Amino acid sequence: MIEAMLLGTGAMMPLPHRWLSSLLVRSSGQMTLFDCGEGTQIAWRSAGWGMRRLGAICLSHCHADHVAGLPGLLHALTWADRDELVTIYGPAGTLRVVEGLRVIAPMLPYPVAVRELAPGDVFALPGGLTGTVAAGHHALPVLAYRVDLPRAPRFEPERARALGVPLELWRRLQAGEMVTWARRSAQPEQVMGPPRRGVSLAYVTDTRPVPGFLPLLEEVDLLVCEGTYGDSADTEKAARNTHMTFAEAAGLAAAAKVGRLWLTHFSPGMADPGAFAANARAIFPETTVGYAGLTTDLTFPDPS
Amino acid sequence: MIEAMLLGTGAMMPLPHRWLSSLLVRSSGQMTLFDCGEGTQIAWRSAGWGMRRLGAICLSHCHADHVAGLPGLLHALTWADRDELVTIYGPAGTLRVVEGLRVIAPMLPYPVAVRELAPGDVFALPGGLTGTVAAGHHALPVLAYRVDLPRAPRFEPERARALGVPLELWRRLQAGEMVTWARRSAQPEQVMGPPRRGVSLAYVTDTRPVPGFLPLLEEVDLLVCEGTYGDSADTEKAARNTHMTFAEAAGLAAAAKVGRLWLTHFSPGMADPGAFAANARAIFPETTVGYAGLTTDLTFPDPS
Repeated sequence: MIEAMLLGTGAMMPLPHRWLSSLLVRSSGQMTLFDCGEGTQIAWRSAGWGMRRLGAICLSHCHADHVAGLPGLLHALTWADRDELVTIYGPAGTLRVVEGLRVIAPMLPYPVAVRELAPGDVFALPGGLTGTVAAGHHALPVLAYRVDLPRAPRFEPERARALGVPLELWRRLQAGEMVTWARRSAQPEQVMGPPRRGVSLAYVTDTRPVPGFLPLLEEVDLLVCEGTYGDSADTEKAARNTHMTFAEAAGLAAAAKVGRLWLTHFSPGMADPGAFAANARAIFPETTVGYAGLTTDLTFPDPS
Repeated sequence: MIEAMLLGTGAMMPLPHRWLSSLLVRSSGQMTLFDCGEGTQIAWRSAGWGMRRLGAICLSHCHADHVAGLPGLLHALTWADRDELVTIYGPAGTLRVVEGLRVIAPMLPYPVAVRELAPGDVFALPGGLTGTVAAGHHALPVLAYRVDLPRAPRFEPERARALGVPLELWRRLQAGEMVTWARRSAQPEQVMGPPRRGVSLAYVTDTRPVPGFLPLLEEVDLLVCEGTYGDSADTEKAARNTHMTFAEAAGLAAAAKVGRLWLTHFSPGMADPGAFAANARAIFPETTVGYAGLTTDLTFPDPS
């Protein structure tokens, strides 16, 4: 299962009633944060998930409204008694930005690593998740993230029984180990069924919808996507500012055949994003206009 | 008149219901901000004073909870159409910190200057205010600030009349100019009364109460002072962490014969700072336990 929670949905500047865009993802209790603008640590505290088990921070890009909260969050992890590695991922330029911001968080009781990603990179995220990125189109280098929780194939006991594997060795086979007994052996592949679909989500913000997103986002269960402008009359403005309208985000969701769409990253000029929901739902019905605290569990469809 | 407003009263980390310590000061419509932690720009937006006329930012010291909001605030000034100089004052080390943080605010449509102050420096602040600083005692270099709005001596028309100054020249004399008429002249000093007391405030945080503060704070109308710990049982902890208890802040206020004391910079562990008010009031009755939005006008006592 992947748990996902929006910590905020704002763009440009934090507002008294709208935190900046940020997504928190949890798997097996371990967390990854997507973007960290000014105030994200406060939104997080309001949300109630503890901070100690944050293992990775993924930055879409290095504009202030997506990274200015980093030094404060790094201190907050100290107060939360974090003592294990935190890895910060981001596009080219991230290292220089993190180094600059750490002028006010120079010494931390846990190690911090920074890894600049290139489009197509595949990397491990906390809690058994796999990350992948594609390049977006914005004023600065920007990455769109996909996260997968793979699912092991089903163990087929009848095949293990037919091979004569002793019962006490089944667990090791299930865990992917080869087992041997009485001069015989068995491989995991011999007792496991066909590949099974896992669960997945994607986080896409501060970019135009580009063709390279289609393979990245294909059939994700949840797409968290920017919709800076609700009104389709702002389509030209969205193109000029390299953002998306609600309708463009919905079009991307439909083209990529995703399960659900959460809209985020609303322009400060848009007082009530919900008023524009129909512009997205006409194109992609399974759309939710995001808000801080919006939470879901992405579970494997068949519990067996 | 000086207007003063607390934007927040927190220490260490911003909390869902407590912004970090910050003080906003306005004189003739022009503003100076004291400290700028993460979230200060949001507190400011809630408070309602526009940002465009911010001319100076005074940093007590460079710990993250007092400066992490700087890059976001510099962007916010851009959105507020600021186009004139903003000067950032702070102790030794400020330049390096501002340069680091500006990695995410590299280009701004208005000029920014940074001036590192030494104890005893006197400098001009927006709206005709005069600033002075003294060194505190903390883990990093820290400055305590005093701000004065001087008051011109009273103009004494009977003396101008006795000198025969034509009526149309009185305004220039009042403004401090020498005037000449019909081969005669008069100096402002000849028509002005004795010096008059102005109004003043001070901002003191993240420091022990040190003897050097007494001349700095002498008889200020308003002392905004840290009281990290309300309970006097925490006096040793306050000394160890180079902070103050409520009682120590009140002792400083009493010794410096200030007009009023506002307490701020409350430890996150102190859920209800107001519960400890009596610890300060027993020593200095004119104490208010600060909160975001607490506002006052410091006016010249006699309106003439």
